[in-house]
Amino acid sequence: MLRTLCSELPAATGEVVLEGWIHRRRRLAAVTFVVIRDRTGLAQVVATDPVVREQISQLPEESVVRVAGTATANAKAPGGVELTEPAIEPLGAPARQPPLELWRPAVGATLPTLLDHAALTWRHPARQAVWKIAAASLSGFRSHLDGAGFTEIATPKIVDRSTESGANVFPLNYFGATAYLAQSPQLYKQMLTGVFERVYEVGPVFRAEPHDTGRHLAQYTSLDAELGFIADHRDVLTVLRDTLAAMLETVRETTGAAVELLAATLPVVPDRIPIVHFRRALELVGASPEEPDLAPEHERALGHWAQQTFGSDFLAVEGYPAAKRPFYTHPQPDDPRWTNSFDLLFRGLELVTGGQRLHNHADYLTALITRGDDPAEYGPYLEAMAHGMPPHGGFAIGLERWVTRLLGSDNIRYAALFPRDAHRLQP
Amino acid sequence: MLRTLCSELPAATGEVVLEGWIHRRRRLAAVTFVVIRDRTGLAQVVATDPVVREQISQLPEESVVRVAGTATANAKAPGGVELTEPAIEPLGAPARQPPLELWRPAVGATLPTLLDHAALTWRHPARQAVWKIAAASLSGFRSHLDGAGFTEIATPKIVDRSTESGANVFPLNYFGATAYLAQSPQLYKQMLTGVFERVYEVGPVFRAEPHDTGRHLAQYTSLDAELGFIADHRDVLTVLRDTLAAMLETVRETTGAAVELLAATLPVVPDRIPIVHFRRALELVGASPEEPDLAPEHERALGHWAQQTFGSDFLAVEGYPAAKRPFYTHPQPDDPRWTNSFDLLFRGLELVTGGQRLHNHADYLTALITRGDDPAEYGPYLEAMAHGMPPHGGFAIGLERWVTRLLGSDNIRYAALFPRDAHRLQP
Repeated sequence: MLRTLCSELPAATGEVVLEGWIHRRRRLAAVTFVVIRDRTGLAQVVATDPVVREQISQLPEESVVRVAGTATANAKAPGGVELTEPAIEPLGAPARQPPLELWRPAVGATLPTLLDHAALTWRHPARQAVWKIAAASLSGFRSHLDGAGFTEIATPKIVDRSTESGANVFPLNYFGATAYLAQSPQLYKQMLTGVFERVYEVGPVFRAEPHDTGRHLAQYTSLDAELGFIADHRDVLTVLRDTLAAMLETVRETTGAAVELLAATLPVVPDRIPIVHFRRALELVGASPEEPDLAPEHERALGHWAQQTFGSDFLAVEGYPAAKRPFYTHPQPDDPRWTNSFDLLFRGLELVTGGQRLHNHADYLTALITRGDDPAEYGPYLEAMAHGMPPHGGFAIGLERWVTRLLGSDNIRYAALFPRDAHRLQP
Repeated sequence: MLRTLCSELPAATGEVVLEGWIHRRRRLAAVTFVVIRDRTGLAQVVATDPVVREQISQLPEESVVRVAGTATANAKAPGGVELTEPAIEPLGAPARQPPLELWRPAVGATLPTLLDHAALTWRHPARQAVWKIAAASLSGFRSHLDGAGFTEIATPKIVDRSTESGANVFPLNYFGATAYLAQSPQLYKQMLTGVFERVYEVGPVFRAEPHDTGRHLAQYTSLDAELGFIADHRDVLTVLRDTLAAMLETVRETTGAAVELLAATLPVVPDRIPIVHFRRALELVGASPEEPDLAPEHERALGHWAQQTFGSDFLAVEGYPAAKRPFYTHPQPDDPRWTNSFDLLFRGLELVTGGQRLHNHADYLTALITRGDDPAEYGPYLEAMAHGMPPHGGFAIGLERWVTRLLGSDNIRYAALFPRDAHRLQP
């Protein structure tokens, strides 16, 4: 007999078969309630037969079962239909008692417990909801860019040097030589803009971040996009705006129940994200015009200002000083103290960095030599630049950071399935 | 003025602007032809003005330009329309002469040249076509599984031990400790089947394969799927069948021109892939019943047999001996010498491995101890198995292998954007 999913039970009639986990058992005087959990949600089973009730008492929560029974209307059941007269067939050995009670509405566990037992704690509906929002975000990112003429790419995660700087890389024994885990696909996505014009990659990036903060992971999922034939960084910002809107739309459409369960307030992305120049941003927050970067309290103040002034959860700050940006950053044409780069603030926190890159070989040589870098270290990358590259730029969104901020969470580890940090290599 | 893409030129009229690379120049006595290449294809530009012709002679192939002109019908032009009276604006410095002539129909370069200059050689339309087929395959894989109730996952690529064996792993300095690059997401996707029932991941996996063959890469893109609540491995094979059919359908629908350019013959996936038991397969190829595995010549013979007998490019061989399969492999219930696992042969070559896994904690303990492995090494994984796992199984498709075999190519390196092997860490 074909399986009925829990979400399909409210529309079912007659004999049905559910398969899933025993989410919760409640034994009353004359009846035992069992809540079954499958990938679509929960369903209620009611047993009155003493033999079946005894069988249930031998099947702890999280045991996996097949339940055949009758779909029966009951206004008090979730969805208005429950399964009665059940026959229960275990699909495996009875489950061991979980380290936390997954059936309780709130996840009653500290962060270390949550992470130590991630394979189990992700089963909690409120935890599943977090990842479902992450997965929907990935889907929205890709489908939007697919529709905008982008080509998906897959680039090396083992590289012969660090992408942007020598710091925070993981060294690797590569057939006896030393290699490194890629900190980003930056140089590869730029080279491939010379091939496909518009490219994106969703993949792991690695940062040997020694500090134990709520904002950093040693591995995270980077949503990278890069596009050619732009006028400047504002074209990149437009694509970023549309991409974020599509991600939110997919979250809204496909994981509405998860958003509701987590009581998350999804932002509205304005048709045009307000833009303020870095120099003006410093003025607005009363910082010295010599400041090379925005401090967290500056970002918070700017987020407040954008909300007050434009009613926007998003604010783009453009024109960051060249000294604080990587060598490939394109200068602001009318004043090279500034750059054609931006940070996108979301509710007063930096969410995305992006900008226009250099595209002429000679400009790269100058930029690298000025910084004291050896152009010979960037051979294949500079070769691409010498052979005709369009004006181009791009951005990178950290998936876990995105989800964390969307949910107003205070630790990025909640948004990674099996997070990695300086103290955690397990599970 | 809004840019017209090369593919849009045949439908264009009046003044248009193209942007792209100078793919080819041909200077005749009174006219210069320029072929412009962008992400959508090629377009012809015809210059007669001596000043413009002189300008073009200063812009080597691969220079990036904006060309404004008049869309003019010409039956001899590609698509029936060419650009006349062009005004050309370089969008960067003139390009350096490429290491191979990208405008020639055939890629005239040896494999090392192709790989050494990958950022340039991928610009060749025949090379782009290979990757477009890869990207379409990824898209088809995901969209099919999204529609079948699967959840996308992202798992750690840095692990504290090898996934399946101690061989061929890359050791890593992880904050002073030794860690390894993940050879597959196997254990993680199984654990997450306990959460989401049906999961998939597209991501890099790493094998420190020391042998320099045409079949191995040190990093490749693995298309992993795993699903719960199966009866046995044949349910997995059904999902695999439908997934491959969807991948091929997406390739056909979205990259028809690439398939045609490469003169690839896409297979038809039969509604039911023929299945033969390993024991019977040995008989069919006249091998000893004691053979523990199929040799390449056996696979070729079986491919031929499947073609002759069923008219099928695909053949599933099920029941591989337990000794040749990983510890998590589910035995064949009626005869534990064999397993509920399969290899899928495509045109006589192994393409995919899959099967049913163990799902009871006690069976894992037995399997590990029998093999002399220490269960304590698999702590979090075994914990998941102790807390209620559904009968489950899955498969993994290597993207580069898939593309290589689809195109009848002899070296997997042609199908990776920037391949990694024992001798190659660049570009």
